[in-house]
Amino acid sequence: MLDLESLFKLSYGMCIVSSKKDGRFNGCIVNTVFQLTPEPPMIAVSVNKQNLTHEYITDSKVFAISILAESTPIPFIGRFGFRTGRDIDKFQRANYKVGITGVPIILDNVVGFIEAEVADAIDVETHTLFIGRIVACETIDDSKIPMAYTYYRDIKHGRTPRTAATYIEKKP
Amino acid sequence: MLDLESLFKLSYGMCIVSSKKDGRFNGCIVNTVFQLTPEPPMIAVSVNKQNLTHEYITDSKVFAISILAESTPIPFIGRFGFRTGRDIDKFQRANYKVGITGVPIILDNVVGFIEAEVADAIDVETHTLFIGRIVACETIDDSKIPMAYTYYRDIKHGRTPRTAATYIEKKP
Repeated sequence: MLDLESLFKLSYGMCIVSSKKDGRFNGCIVNTVFQLTPEPPMIAVSVNKQNLTHEYITDSKVFAISILAESTPIPFIGRFGFRTGRDIDKFQRANYKVGITGVPIILDNVVGFIEAEVADAIDVETHTLFIGRIVACETIDDSKIPMAYTYYRDIKHGRTPRTAATYIEKKP
Repeated sequence: MLDLESLFKLSYGMCIVSSKKDGRFNGCIVNTVFQLTPEPPMIAVSVNKQNLTHEYITDSKVFAISILAESTPIPFIGRFGFRTGRDIDKFQRANYKVGITGVPIILDNVVGFIEAEVADAIDVETHTLFIGRIVACETIDDSKIPMAYTYYRDIKHGRTPRTAATYIEKKP
């Protein structure tokens, strides 16, 4: 039996992965970020090859993860998750700082962030799994609760874009 | 700044990864399981090289993930997470079934399960990241809530073993 809905039982957190290329910044929403090893601290993130952020990470070999809070407004998620950086500058109205690797780190609606250098990039069908060596990580607001993907989907009634690792096509 | 505690802000689910070797079964607790791609459905799990389950997955090239419920008793997590299959048969007193790949699938305290064939194994320092093609996945009990790692740590006051991807050594 292959009941893909059952995969929603896995727990994920909602994050923004951001990167840079030729002096430009971009980022998108991901829910597939996890720590791989404690020492040295390494992290993995799965990014769809169609996303502009994928092109930026491939080029610069650095990325940041901003961990979103439950209180994040849906329009904010819409801007980073459902628009493409090919059409708009997502950072124009965002509060961010530039990290030690030169990537932009979103600070709006964020619990904490992680900055990493790409150690490996694994080709997995439609996605690339970027494995990063963590060079910085910090809690921004300890009073905020990280947004779980189930919270986004069930409480906020958020949608999942076609390019997400957890997307399921609705059969007619 | 490298504040490793901030990495706890990432959301994870508590799972058992299980496998087989020479007619024997073993499994251990992991909190680093995530879906990589929707089509074909693929999954990744990070397992410490010291774990017996790592040896079993490397040998059989198949594994199952059982997604644990919030209601899972701590002694059950203790048996799978803090004992080694080199000393005890963890499946002796467990309720399980054998999946289509021949691996044991834990059914106690479980929300759902995923069965996968290893497509790739990435060496990442102390851990191996197994990338699996999902061959079966099913919800077992839709009324149960999956146990988030934060729930285990903060509500159940569960400990983290030294071999976990998210382990932080307490400085004296």
